[in-house]
Amino acid sequence: MLRHDGRVRFTKGHGTGNDFVILSDPDGRLELTPDLVAALCDRRRGIGGDGLLRVVRTAHHPEAAALASAADWFMDYWNSDGSLAEMCGNGVRVFVRYLHAEGLAEAGAAGLPVATRSGVVRAVPRGEEISVDMGRPRSRGRATATLGALELPGAAVDCGNPHLVCALPTGLELSALDLSVPPGYPAEVFPNGVNVEFVTADPEPVDGADLHVRMRVHERGSGETLSCGSGALAVAWTALTDAGRSTGTVAVDLPGGRLTATCDERTCWLTGPAVLVAHGETDLGTAVPRAPLAARAVSA
Amino acid sequence: MLRHDGRVRFTKGHGTGNDFVILSDPDGRLELTPDLVAALCDRRRGIGGDGLLRVVRTAHHPEAAALASAADWFMDYWNSDGSLAEMCGNGVRVFVRYLHAEGLAEAGAAGLPVATRSGVVRAVPRGEEISVDMGRPRSRGRATATLGALELPGAAVDCGNPHLVCALPTGLELSALDLSVPPGYPAEVFPNGVNVEFVTADPEPVDGADLHVRMRVHERGSGETLSCGSGALAVAWTALTDAGRSTGTVAVDLPGGRLTATCDERTCWLTGPAVLVAHGETDLGTAVPRAPLAARAVSA
Repeated sequence: MLRHDGRVRFTKGHGTGNDFVILSDPDGRLELTPDLVAALCDRRRGIGGDGLLRVVRTAHHPEAAALASAADWFMDYWNSDGSLAEMCGNGVRVFVRYLHAEGLAEAGAAGLPVATRSGVVRAVPRGEEISVDMGRPRSRGRATATLGALELPGAAVDCGNPHLVCALPTGLELSALDLSVPPGYPAEVFPNGVNVEFVTADPEPVDGADLHVRMRVHERGSGETLSCGSGALAVAWTALTDAGRSTGTVAVDLPGGRLTATCDERTCWLTGPAVLVAHGETDLGTAVPRAPLAARAVSA
Repeated sequence: MLRHDGRVRFTKGHGTGNDFVILSDPDGRLELTPDLVAALCDRRRGIGGDGLLRVVRTAHHPEAAALASAADWFMDYWNSDGSLAEMCGNGVRVFVRYLHAEGLAEAGAAGLPVATRSGVVRAVPRGEEISVDMGRPRSRGRATATLGALELPGAAVDCGNPHLVCALPTGLELSALDLSVPPGYPAEVFPNGVNVEFVTADPEPVDGADLHVRMRVHERGSGETLSCGSGALAVAWTALTDAGRSTGTVAVDLPGGRLTATCDERTCWLTGPAVLVAHGETDLGTAVPRAPLAARAVSA
């Protein structure tokens, strides 16, 4: 947390290459500003991360206090540009890894509830990995993405955020796609933009999985990323649907590693690694405009 | 340095957005491997950096021991891919900032000598900034770069490494260039590749500078970067030459900030910021194959 000399203690972690700056602030005393978040997430002048996770007790954060009876901890998630975000499947796993590593919480038999801006999600450690209850996606019909001269029909899937899952035609390799240019999509179907996933089946069987696919993803606002949790879920959901199933387990290989989606009649669990890489201290907080410490101490 | 549990203490710093992982290893006990360097410099799964600076006493590093009478400290510089590098103007400034911050060395009136793989360089703090003696570049005639359909005649400059400095024609803005594609150059002139700089004059005068230019750079092997110290020097040198001068001061604005080159009859000094951002500890060292600690302790 922010010390009186402006120094900030941080941890850095990632899930399948989706990386986060983690700040411990149990009592909600750290006044995060968009400028400070952007400075911390700056990959060259700061610590670097796709986003920032503030670890704060639910009761001590005004946006989360109503959830205090359901979850002890609130994942206060910020994008690297300093904007707020609701949920992030990779972020929740890293968040729960951090709570365990610091001895702040333990998952019971029913898992560990975590408050987020889109409600309470539940996480369960499974060996070295962590599973997150993501809910069941909703299929939203068909739509077509374009990529250069390619036209790729796909499935629209709602995972809380919008996705368009496009299978590649036979003979086209994932590695041949140029995702440095944003894919096109029908704006009337996705008025708020869409994450577009490109998928091929992988014939190699994976132990414990009914299906095995490989994907790349272009995230709205971010471009191509190494991993997208909800995108992997949308892809798994579409693979199950295309196979005529409503439940089952899908191994999804992304550029940043493997995520596994398991759907039952009630929900889907997304399972994958969550790694803490480094701990340290930075004085970036001293260089970024903030409200005076005294004023914040009074309001906390 | 590497502890017995495999943890590595690090500092992160940057000069005009050119960023480095710094490892303190005064006694040369840390056995760096390309794998460990690449893991530490990985921006998503590691600490992240354009390169790694190991801080080691000259007498304790086999590659530098011959320079021990001329410089106490050796900048053991590695690229982010785990390959070795000779010199880096931004890196030397950050290296010297670290020595000062840790109380390991002080610059005398003649500056602080630093051993590198290309010999001893000298650094002098100037207020908040640090100057490095880069030597005088050598002009190598004319050559033409291509960028898409553009043909840009330029000046070939040798700063120890090869550069091609191209002034933009009137009406073409730096911001309009697409440097995601490598520029073309005559391979017979630059058999080992070349860093290509794109330059425009900036009419706004800068206090203490005779000339003021803006630039972007495409570095061989790295693509576009926020800053390149030798590239800024090549640009300043060309600006002086084009103005019919052999000495003078040039303010060079790069995407990552401002560097100032001052050339006298003997040498050129490159001056700019050097910032330490964070200190911490990582256990990445435990996950990367290395020689056993016992064996290294014996050989140290």
